[in-house]
Amino acid sequence: MPIVEIKMWAGRTEEQKERLVKEITEAVTRALGVEPEETQVIIIEIPKSNWGVSGRLASKT
Amino acid sequence: MPIVEIKMWAGRTEEQKERLVKEITEAVTRALGVEPEETQVIIIEIPKSNWGVSGRLASKT
Amino acid sequence: MPIVEIKMWAGRTEEQKERLVKEITEAVTRALGVEPEETQVIIIEIPKSNWGVSGRLASKT
Amino acid sequence: MPIVEIKMWAGRTEEQKERLVKEITEAVTRALGVEPEETQVIIIEIPKSNWGVSGRLASKT
Amino acid sequence: MPIVEIKMWAGRTEEQKERLVKEITEAVTRALGVEPEETQVIIIEIPKSNWGVSGRLASKT
Amino acid sequence: MPIVEIKMWAGRTEEQKERLVKEITEAVTRALGVEPEETQVIIIEIPKSNWGVSGRLASKT
Repeated sequence: MPIVEIKMWAGRTEEQKERLVKEITEAVTRALGVEPEETQVIIIEIPKSNWGVSGRLASKT
Repeated sequence: MPIVEIKMWAGRTEEQKERLVKEITEAVTRALGVEPEETQVIIIEIPKSNWGVSGRLASKT
Repeated sequence: MPIVEIKMWAGRTEEQKERLVKEITEAVTRALGVEPEETQVIIIEIPKSNWGVSGRLASKT
Repeated sequence: MPIVEIKMWAGRTEEQKERLVKEITEAVTRALGVEPEETQVIIIEIPKSNWGVSGRLASKT
Repeated sequence: MPIVEIKMWAGRTEEQKERLVKEITEAVTRALGVEPEETQVIIIEIPKSNWGVSGRLASKT
Repeated sequence: MPIVEIKMWAGRTEEQKERLVKEITEAVTRALGVEPEETQVIIIEIPKSNWGVSGRLASKT
């Protein structure tokens, strides 16, 4: 019953999210031998103003 | 100091969230023998367009 | 499709975990009107030496 | 800078994890147009005795 | 490659988030001896109406 | 009530974790103006064989 969670910057299109969920599910089912129905994928969108790299907000770089 | 995190589809009413927090806290305190004050419950609402099952977004099914 | 995650100190018995999963699932199904089969509960045990409160490890207090 | 986290039952082989990381990274880079170097994949293994479905521990079903 | 995630009530200013990311990154690099570029900090803002303490929503206390 | 979670490779000493918790708590209290008692820090150690970067396990690089 794998649960996949992706944190990424906000702003992707519905088409990109659709493809992301589809391809990750395929990757998981292939690698682990589980069924697609057992696999959940949750996308958590983080605004760049809430994501820091190297000590600075991504919105400021 | 249990910390409970619930990921669920967005769109519940304030009353449902209130009940959810109350009942989960009671469940945790009963099962683990901790105090309610030590128990935190965080609700993370995920839009259906960010949640995939069986390789498809829940917003498309 | 609620997913519940509980972080708590390591060292609970199987009986306590069983009760925890049972009671939380009941709380979620009652409060949200979902089916038990749709509800997953994941327990993440954290050693006290990896959990800090007030700036100190719980293993040192 | 996508960060992917997979929670799954413990007990997979190193080969399965290797394939999982490789295939998920490819899925993410294809779907989002990011570089592999920007993509991190974290596997969190959960014992069946810590994972509940339908109110029961997976170790008991 | 430490990844730091902070869950906190929503409503902080950009200046506070900037300082938070900067100071946490410094704390991590000092304590672990890693480079700032390797350190990511993600802020997840939770509305008070989604955060329960002692069985009640923080928005109601 | 900030909750900080750090995912990092396994293998740090108790002294490093102690310093990490202390310094992160100070960073959070300074940046957000909260009390140390309100701040929890959870360290989640991930074996290198469960952490992928650039599509490869960190244990293989």
